Amino acid sequence: MKIHGDLNSGNCLKVKWTCDHLALPYEWVDVDMAKGDTRTPAFLKLNPAGQVPVVVFDDGRALAQSNAIIRHLARGSALVPADPFHAAKMDEWLFWEQYSHEPYIGVCRFEMVYLGRSQGDLDPDRVKRGYAALALMEHQLQRTRFLTGEAFTLADVALLPYTRSAHEGGFHLDGYGSVRRWIGDAGRTLGL
Amino acid sequence: MKIHGDLNSGNCLKVKWTCDHLALPYEWVDVDMAKGDTRTPAFLKLNPAGQVPVVVFDDGRALAQSNAIIRHLARGSALVPADPFHAAKMDEWLFWEQYSHEPYIGVCRFEMVYLGRSQGDLDPDRVKRGYAALALMEHQLQRTRFLTGEAFTLADVALLPYTRSAHEGGFHLDGYGSVRRWIGDAGRTLGL
Repeated sequence: MKIHGDLNSGNCLKVKWTCDHLALPYEWVDVDMAKGDTRTPAFLKLNPAGQVPVVVFDDGRALAQSNAIIRHLARGSALVPADPFHAAKMDEWLFWEQYSHEPYIGVCRFEMVYLGRSQGDLDPDRVKRGYAALALMEHQLQRTRFLTGEAFTLADVALLPYTRSAHEGGFHLDGYGSVRRWIGDAGRTLGL
Repeated sequence: MKIHGDLNSGNCLKVKWTCDHLALPYEWVDVDMAKGDTRTPAFLKLNPAGQVPVVVFDDGRALAQSNAIIRHLARGSALVPADPFHAAKMDEWLFWEQYSHEPYIGVCRFEMVYLGRSQGDLDPDRVKRGYAALALMEHQLQRTRFLTGEAFTLADVALLPYTRSAHEGGFHLDGYGSVRRWIGDAGRTLGL
């Protein structure tokens, strides 16, 4: 299996970390978004949406969307709860991550790190929503060790990259002690 | 099972349509977002994210995020492909919907229908990304009857509500003949 990705992208790190944690063999193919690698005809054939990561299996079939990829690769492992309701709660975090966390925390980081914008140039509404996402994680992580309970799951894999690098997007985690504790716990679990 | 939802929300319609299609019994609890019903302490106890839909099962456990809910309710049914790779392709569409479709097409509709904005007031970048989403669907639907192939799946359930009402957000489907054909096919499959 080949993983086409950019190590600067949290969405790509999710796939790498899942494979490393489960000892799934893969070949990493570097895709430089900044150089337009995701807009070439060859790449768009793999993923017409023009986004990384994309996984290409040995039979040539391709799969995109980070959370769909890790959901597929980790099926049957301890990263996906066996109980259907607990698995659904994990999915709730995965969809929430893409809708309510990455578009705010990930995008602020992208603008500051890759577009060179200053913190003062960030959209205040985006910053506010980013803090709302951190507050929701804090609410949960004051109650449980990991996001879906006491067990480490894909919910933690999916939320870790952009939360861990939130400071690069100007976010301060001072008031989010349980999030900081969880960043350490989840990072250690993944051997980061 | 109780579904807490607002029939004006495409995310809530997905859950209703899945239940109706699979003949799953439920009680509908109307939540009026415009009146602030998702911000009451009682609602935030069900879903700290303050979003509809939320499903509450008979044992009192709650599940949020429309696509996590339909994924859970439809497990084992014909709406979820039995083959793991095909199920993952369905998930690819579900995550794409929340990241690349609803935030553009759904939000434009929300601004025009519920905030009373005119088409000229819409963010041009949001409109552009909405048309890019329609183009990606057209690309797929020129090749297959439904989004993941010849079979109707949750990918179609999830993409239908906001695509079907895209015109209410100022989008013209004139150049998207396969999307229009699919709206008819998917709607008939759901008995709409």
